[in-house]
Amino acid sequence: MIIVPEREIAGLITPEAAFDAVENVFGAMARGEALNFPVIREAIGHADALYGFKSGFDRAGLVMGLKSGGYWPGNADKGLTNHQSTVILFDPDTGRATALVGGNLLTALRTAAAAAVSIRHLARPDAKVLGMIGAGHQSTFQMRAALAQRRFERVIGWNLHPERLSRLQEVAQEHDLPFEAVDLPQMREADVIITITSSFDPILMSDHVADGTHIASMGTDTKGKQELEPALVARARRFTDEVAQSVSIGECQHAVAAGLIGADDIAEIGAVINGTYPGREGAREVTLFDGTGVGLQDLAVAAAAVRLAGEKGVAIEVDF
Amino acid sequence: MIIVPEREIAGLITPEAAFDAVENVFGAMARGEALNFPVIREAIGHADALYGFKSGFDRAGLVMGLKSGGYWPGNADKGLTNHQSTVILFDPDTGRATALVGGNLLTALRTAAAAAVSIRHLARPDAKVLGMIGAGHQSTFQMRAALAQRRFERVIGWNLHPERLSRLQEVAQEHDLPFEAVDLPQMREADVIITITSSFDPILMSDHVADGTHIASMGTDTKGKQELEPALVARARRFTDEVAQSVSIGECQHAVAAGLIGADDIAEIGAVINGTYPGREGAREVTLFDGTGVGLQDLAVAAAAVRLAGEKGVAIEVDF
Repeated sequence: MIIVPEREIAGLITPEAAFDAVENVFGAMARGEALNFPVIREAIGHADALYGFKSGFDRAGLVMGLKSGGYWPGNADKGLTNHQSTVILFDPDTGRATALVGGNLLTALRTAAAAAVSIRHLARPDAKVLGMIGAGHQSTFQMRAALAQRRFERVIGWNLHPERLSRLQEVAQEHDLPFEAVDLPQMREADVIITITSSFDPILMSDHVADGTHIASMGTDTKGKQELEPALVARARRFTDEVAQSVSIGECQHAVAAGLIGADDIAEIGAVINGTYPGREGAREVTLFDGTGVGLQDLAVAAAAVRLAGEKGVAIEVDF
Repeated sequence: MIIVPEREIAGLITPEAAFDAVENVFGAMARGEALNFPVIREAIGHADALYGFKSGFDRAGLVMGLKSGGYWPGNADKGLTNHQSTVILFDPDTGRATALVGGNLLTALRTAAAAAVSIRHLARPDAKVLGMIGAGHQSTFQMRAALAQRRFERVIGWNLHPERLSRLQEVAQEHDLPFEAVDLPQMREADVIITITSSFDPILMSDHVADGTHIASMGTDTKGKQELEPALVARARRFTDEVAQSVSIGECQHAVAAGLIGADDIAEIGAVINGTYPGREGAREVTLFDGTGVGLQDLAVAAAAVRLAGEKGVAIEVDF
């Protein structure tokens, strides 16, 4: 089997490669050719950790396996990433393990790629201003992937602790773009807004969003988390990676609980990718992508990493 | 991280080592110190395969991880085992992957160890005759592990295809024990009976079992499978690895469905191991161990394999 250690991933997977892998598998999901299995997520009662698995099978790409990992809040003190992920791939023809891939950077890249895919397919072609809400570890990955999708001319950002916005300012400088820290109402200047926080209360209100905006809401992946006012969710046309997750652990859970929308009011982004469901309809529509994060995204980017590791000769082969 | 390939397992894990690992983790489960997570099991719609995960965390032994694998019916034609399993262990302090272990032989050993643990704690001390029902791949592992638990003087066996019993006869010969192929009613001569079939209909009836017998029912691990007449299950005092599995996918599912017993009528074998619940009460009681198979068993034997591989210098170290 093939081992691709965490340290090799940065040299293997570009944002573009992650984009292609995630776009493909979203399409396969919408065609019914790729299935995510139920998610396991457990508070293990040790080291305050959350541990679990996301898994699935992409029959179109013949990619099968799982991402195992979780959140260890004490890791930072040990010089380790709090979020720890490992992907294991299996041969769908025989069930034998084929690859073990470090999943930390891949997780950031696949999450950013999902938002970028939604921007490619749902944002206005003439979008000029990118709005970033959140300035944590994942925010720079999100911003880099988003900037590749439109000819953005300016970036505005908000964070609960504004001093952390400097990391977004640096990415803007790399791209020769002006960056401005703003209050939330000023997000009305943005054509595309990415929310990537760990919030449990709504941050972005409907009043903060102009008509014609595309919102990629990427932070809500657990029951109780929330980034958007439910009225904003109700106002937008809604897309997601997986409807079942969107209504249960994604941003749409709150608008559903409030009775504002139902599961039938949320479309799979894959159907837009496949051309079987309409994307943006006109320049004034607000579109929302509720990115909940599915195991198939992890498997898709891990399979790409294994392929590229083979081509570049950095894969470790073990006779397992 | 440590890699222990499938080919090394036979040289590392003895039935005794598997016994100790499984007995320990059953005890930890009954003390509430070890938890199995929900099982994932999916028909993937490819190669007629069933694929999934069993996982858990043993806080007492600090062993965490999963067994991934399943059943690929076409593997035999390719010279591979139909059941394919791989165990991945993680550091419960940090969430990092620590070991990847071939799980095929381990699965057979841990299943046999569970029956052996039940014989150690529930069979009559003077048991003389071992009865085997089923002569498939797992039956010889079961028989070897069982023979170590009592001073058996004779083995009797039944299989739907009696010609396959020769493999059990060979194991008996290795142990200098007489072996006899019998009809099911003759199982009344046995003091301990192990059922290890893939049956979906009851094979062993209450009439086939004498008072004082211990039965280890090891074949039923899925909804619909069945080895015992429900009246026999109702007649016995019942023990299991995990009550939740026993009533849903284990042998007890049918007696529960028939209203003959409830979940409260099944005890954890771990409580007997820990001395907090009575085992056999007298020489005439029929005891039943419903072995459903839990992820913690796999993790326990895999952790033992990693330890022994380190001691024997056969572990492959990969800088992951």
